[in-house]
Formats: sequence, C-alpha cells, structure tokens
Amino acid sequence: MRAEILSIGDELISGQTINRNAAWLGEQLQTVGADCRRHLTVGDNLDEIVEAMRASARGSDLLLISGGLGPTDDDLTRRALAVAMHEELVFDPAAFADIESFFSRLGRPMPDVNRVQAMRPASAKCIPNAQGTAPGLAAQWGKCRVFALPGVPREMKAMFQAAVVAELEGRSGGSVVRIRKINTFGAGESWVGDKIKDLMQRGANPTVGTSVHDGVVSVRIYARGRPEEAEAMLGRTTRRIGERLGDLIFSFDEQTMEQVVGTLLLEKRQTVATAESCTGGLLSQLLTSIPGSSAFFGGGWITYSTTLKQSELGIPESLLQSAGAVSAEVAAEMAGAARRNAASDWALAVTGIAGPDGGSAEKPVGLVYIALANAKGCDARRFIFSGGREQVRLRAGQMAMTMLRLSLANLKFEDVVPG
Amino acid sequence: MRAEILSIGDELISGQTINRNAAWLGEQLQTVGADCRRHLTVGDNLDEIVEAMRASARGSDLLLISGGLGPTDDDLTRRALAVAMHEELVFDPAAFADIESFFSRLGRPMPDVNRVQAMRPASAKCIPNAQGTAPGLAAQWGKCRVFALPGVPREMKAMFQAAVVAELEGRSGGSVVRIRKINTFGAGESWVGDKIKDLMQRGANPTVGTSVHDGVVSVRIYARGRPEEAEAMLGRTTRRIGERLGDLIFSFDEQTMEQVVGTLLLEKRQTVATAESCTGGLLSQLLTSIPGSSAFFGGGWITYSTTLKQSELGIPESLLQSAGAVSAEVAAEMAGAARRNAASDWALAVTGIAGPDGGSAEKPVGLVYIALANAKGCDARRFIFSGGREQVRLRAGQMAMTMLRLSLANLKFEDVVPG
Repeated sequence: MRAEILSIGDELISGQTINRNAAWLGEQLQTVGADCRRHLTVGDNLDEIVEAMRASARGSDLLLISGGLGPTDDDLTRRALAVAMHEELVFDPAAFADIESFFSRLGRPMPDVNRVQAMRPASAKCIPNAQGTAPGLAAQWGKCRVFALPGVPREMKAMFQAAVVAELEGRSGGSVVRIRKINTFGAGESWVGDKIKDLMQRGANPTVGTSVHDGVVSVRIYARGRPEEAEAMLGRTTRRIGERLGDLIFSFDEQTMEQVVGTLLLEKRQTVATAESCTGGLLSQLLTSIPGSSAFFGGGWITYSTTLKQSELGIPESLLQSAGAVSAEVAAEMAGAARRNAASDWALAVTGIAGPDGGSAEKPVGLVYIALANAKGCDARRFIFSGGREQVRLRAGQMAMTMLRLSLANLKFEDVVPG
Repeated sequence: MRAEILSIGDELISGQTINRNAAWLGEQLQTVGADCRRHLTVGDNLDEIVEAMRASARGSDLLLISGGLGPTDDDLTRRALAVAMHEELVFDPAAFADIESFFSRLGRPMPDVNRVQAMRPASAKCIPNAQGTAPGLAAQWGKCRVFALPGVPREMKAMFQAAVVAELEGRSGGSVVRIRKINTFGAGESWVGDKIKDLMQRGANPTVGTSVHDGVVSVRIYARGRPEEAEAMLGRTTRRIGERLGDLIFSFDEQTMEQVVGTLLLEKRQTVATAESCTGGLLSQLLTSIPGSSAFFGGGWITYSTTLKQSELGIPESLLQSAGAVSAEVAAEMAGAARRNAASDWALAVTGIAGPDGGSAEKPVGLVYIALANAKGCDARRFIFSGGREQVRLRAGQMAMTMLRLSLANLKFEDVVPG
C-alpha cells in the first residue's frame, strides 16, 4: 500500500507551527504496514492544494490529508478535494446535525459560518468528529483512498483511531508493523549500540535502531508481518535486548522515568523527600508531575545559597568550607537532613555546577554529586554530565531518579550502570 | 522568488524525527521575502530523491535541501543531485582538506568513509561546514538556485546563516520580511485579538496574527518591504500594539518570562525566595533555569504535605483547618515565612489544586492562590487555570512570575491584567 501524507496550512509553510501531524501520521502508517513515500505540505491556496492533491494521489493507494477543514475562508480542503476530483460540493444533513449537536452540548448557538463544514464532495462521506466541529472526509478517488482529517492534533488523532486505522489494517494485506521503544538511562548511545550491534543490521526484520532524547537512550524495534507474527517477533527481540541491557532499561514506549519511580514508590508504600542545589527544583518538579504524587512526595528544600544549606539543612559551615558546597560529603548531609526533616523513607540530594559559569579545573561545569539516603545510610556518587546548563540539570534529575529506582528494586548501582 | 524546501531522511518519513528543519527554513525564507510554496519530505531512496528534486526545482527559483549529506550508504543527496542535474560526481580537494582538518582538530584520524563527503556534482560548489564533517552544496540548476544543507539542525542553521542568507537577501529584489513576536501573559487569545482586531486584516502589510503557547499569547508581526521600510513598519506596528496591550507585554521574540524576571531582579539587585505546594518545584526550576540565578534566588521550600507547611514554614494548624491548605491566607503565610527564612527581598508562594483529582465544587481543579510578599506586606490572589495538571502548574508558575514582574516595575496588577 503506497501512501502519501499531505499537510495543509500557511502556518506550516511559514514555520510558525512545526508539522508534528505529519510525523504522527507517518508513524501510524508504518504501524499498519503502509509504504509511505512522501510528506507534502502546502499553504492555504486553492490552486496549490488541488495540484498537491493530484500529485500526491497519483500512483498512491492511500492519501492522508490534515488541515484546512475549519469554518473560515482560508479553510479550503473540502473545496479543493471537490475540484481535484471533478465533483460538486454537496450539503450533508447528517454532518450538519452533528455540528449543531456539538454546539448544543457546549450550550452555545451554532455560528452560521460553521454551516460550510457540512459540505462534502458528492461521492465522499463525512467522518464524525467527537472532539470538535470539523467533520473529516473519506473518499475513493480512482484507485486512491483519501482521508481528510482536521489539523488540530487532538481531533486528528482521535478521528484517525476511530475511523481510519481499522480500514487501513484491513487493506494492508494482513501485513502490519509493530513498534516498541525500550528506554534506558545511564549509558551512552554507543555503549547501548555496541551491546546490540548484531541486532541492528540494516534491512533486517525486525529492524532495531537507537536514538537519544534528553539523555534517555531508546532502542526502537520495528517488526513487520502478520499481526500475530509481528507481535511474536517484537516479543522475542524485546527479550533478547532485555538480556543484553538488563536493568539499565527503565521503561517501554512512552512511560517516563518519573512515572516509573512514582509507581514503584506507590507500590512499596514508600516516601521520598528532596534537597536540591544546582537542579533548583527540577527534580521535585519531575516527581510531582505525576498525578497522586502527594502519596509519596512530602516535600523538598531548594538550598541554592550556602546560607540556606546551613540554616535549613544544618550543613556545618566547617564542612562547606573544607569539602566545598559541591562535594559528596555535602550531598550526603543534605540528603540525610531532608530525610529526617520530612520524616520520609528516602531522600535525594543534588549539588553541582550546572554552568555555564562557576566551573574550575578541579570542579568543572557538569560536575554533580547525588546522594540517596534511607534508614540504613547514604550513598553519594560523583558524576560529570556533558551539555549545557539545562542538559546538566536534566541529566542530574534523571540520574537521581535512577539511583532511587535501582535502590527500590534492591539493585546495586555498579551492577547496572556502566562506569 | 518562488522557493521550495526538500527534507531527506527515513527518520522523517517514519515520524521518528519531527521535521523541525523545514519549519526553521520556512521561517528564514519568509524573512528574506521568498515565496515558499511547498515543503516536501522523502526517505533515503535514490529514485525518490531524484524525482523529488526535479519536482521541487521545476518552476522554482530556489530549492533548499536538508539531510542526506552524511558519510554512510543511506546518505544519497550528493549522488541524487548529480543524477537529477545529469552531471558527474567529482572529487573536491579543498572540501576534502576541510574534512581532514575537522578530524585533526578533534585529534582523531579521518575514517575512510568520510572521503565520500568531498564529492560534488561537477558544476556545484562545496560549502564549508564549521560545525561538522558534511560540506553543503550550492548549485545553479537552470533557473533554480539549489542549496543542500546538513540535516543536523545546528550544522544546518550555522551553514544557512554563514553561506546562504546574504545571497538570498540579495536575490529577493530588495524585498524582505521582518518578523517580531510580542509576548503577553495574563489575558486570553481572544481578549488580545479583540484589542488589535483592526490591525489583523488578512493580506494587510504588515500582517498581524496571534498564537498561544503554554499560556503565553504572542502577537506576530510580519512586515514586507525593502529592509529599512520593513523595519520602520515593524517599529510603527510594534508601538501601536504596545499602546493597546500595555504592560501585559512582558517580552519580545524569544525572551522568556523567567529571563525577564531574572534580568529585572539583577538590575534592581533584589532577591526572591519561593514556597511551593501544587507547583512542586516548577516555579523555582524556572527561576533557576537562568545562568547566574544564584545572584537573585536564595532558595525555596516545597511544602507539599500539610506537615511540612507547619514544620518548615510555621503555618498554624488552626489556619490550615479553618481556611484550608488551598487558601489566600495560607498562601500569604507561606510567602511571608519563605521571605523571612531566606532573608530575601521578595517571596512567591503557590498553593492550589493541580488535579486531576482533589477538586471539589467549592475548590475545583485549577484553583490556585498565589502570594507575593515584600517588606511592605503581602498580596495574595485567587486564580482558576484551565487545562490538565501540567498546564495548571505551568500557568501558576507563569502567573507567579507575572506578579513579581509587575511589582518590580511598580505596576498594579489590576491596572495591567484584565479581570
């Protein structure tokens, strides 16, 4: 099934909006086993949209369009599709009733301008939009199946899932692609790649590749075949990669580190507190980004200044002077004090030099000490993170959560994270 | 000058990578007054790249290509351009020397595989790459000027600025587009739009439009003309919009709220501390995201639990019971205590219900109290923010910074932010 994606909107051409829709649809096409050849984007210009529709439908079995279905004058997708297909635009009473009922659910009268959204090329069908006013369109144009979806990402995704994906899976001749993302933190991309090099051959099935985002190194598996075959391949390859990378893996697919750590804390009914210097609240913000985090997070201290390290966490002035604020000793004292003050099971402390200034030969930018305290004692570790200020802070936060994750799972840091 | 953008890479087609390069180049084309008609993306397939190059160059005066200039077998842009232009690929000794010297600066030998990056279509010129190994290409193909840039965003942007933009400004017949973004926080997009409705006519010059990102409502101005004309129009329209929106405007272009507040604090040599409940560290994290923030930020307390509100900030239990943890009174006490404990000029406190759970009819999800304390007293305000947990937290953080920004500028909140 040869497919193309056509995105419509001046805001995409001008770069004001980044075209995330095309990426999302590209991923979906891969999942259903379609062979996507091109993404094309044009502005809100009737002639150009018509020409793009013709160019994209030519030689394709499937054309996915997004955008241009709104009620205003610059929403031209309905009209352009009718022109391209040499059809009349007709009024669809059922679609009109849907739009009216969308407004009545909001308790508002339907503006006249929205009436145009109930128009469709004569042979096309309207697709209901549960999330907004713009109905989608489904049409058969020669040998090319066409779906026009709204440009609002939430509406587009819901409509694709509800009205498009099942038909595409049926059309793909039984062949689909199943994708899994395996997320690791603590080793570099080349270290991870080396461990699974033999699985990463180009053109193999499943295809295996690595990528990095915010310090998280992810391995993606793409398995192609009939659904049950693809699932089985995905399972086998996931297990093989699991054997190689072990507990460096913290999650699958879109699950974040903070979700994993939060879930572990909830399951074990444990609590954590924080004492942050260079991360300045970032670690606490990640831990509290999870709904229900008040069950495991009591609070934290952001002791950015030396004075507050002393007054709030009781770090001795002599220690701050002898070891320095950025030291394993101070990190350990911070964690211990946070744990006692918050009466929590665990505490994480971070102190370091995020940069760009403040570094020295002895204590360079990127040097961060992280300490994890519990009732049995305290583990303080030294790290050097690369990148700019935001990267150093984010990696420090992720590494702190990694230390807690491993301890909650009764794992030794050295056994999991390469030195 | 009719222009097209061609992006090359399997990772773009599959949606693994979002195509930010096309958006960035689209914005640059607008700035130099080019009329960009289409963005096209194809995978790492020679025939398809050749076909796409021909389709994109046809009828265009300018073709910007990004991606496919790496040293591996799936980097096909050099070869495809030679095929499309019916030219031989030739070896460029100067480009080769550049690549070798890039590696020698890194203290590493040049791998053999990188030799291919010194190949170019016979009539093309190589563009030096200061940031990486891949030289770009510049060619004249019939009436179409072609630039091929690396896919790595940092390299692409540097090369565009160094070797492309000046020539494009020269070619645009003297007409350029100057863009300004005016950033506001505190009013909705429709309120902002209403204030400047008469300036937002479609097709006018300058063009004025609004957009929202993370609660920040931005007004963009696009002024087209000769450089000095466009600059003057931009200045005039900026002033007119400034008169309408007043101090709701906190910055221009890419400057963030935290940068503005940090700069104000530094200028006035004032310091701030924080006491956070529902934002859980987010406000402090924003304030400390700025290099040099230790000069104005002493620290903060994340008193997520009621216990810590009492033990660390001394909030009386009776007040927590009578007014509730989410109340103006508690917010004010938190701010006062943070200010005293940190011995800072200002303190911001946030307490609220970020959701998705924990709301009631009386205190719904999205209810947030923000207090700002200084030596003269304390200002506590009630807000209802819409959206999910992350949006509520982010808007609360932005609003807290807005309260501080206005106070630092000796402005009354009610005089600036619509009710």
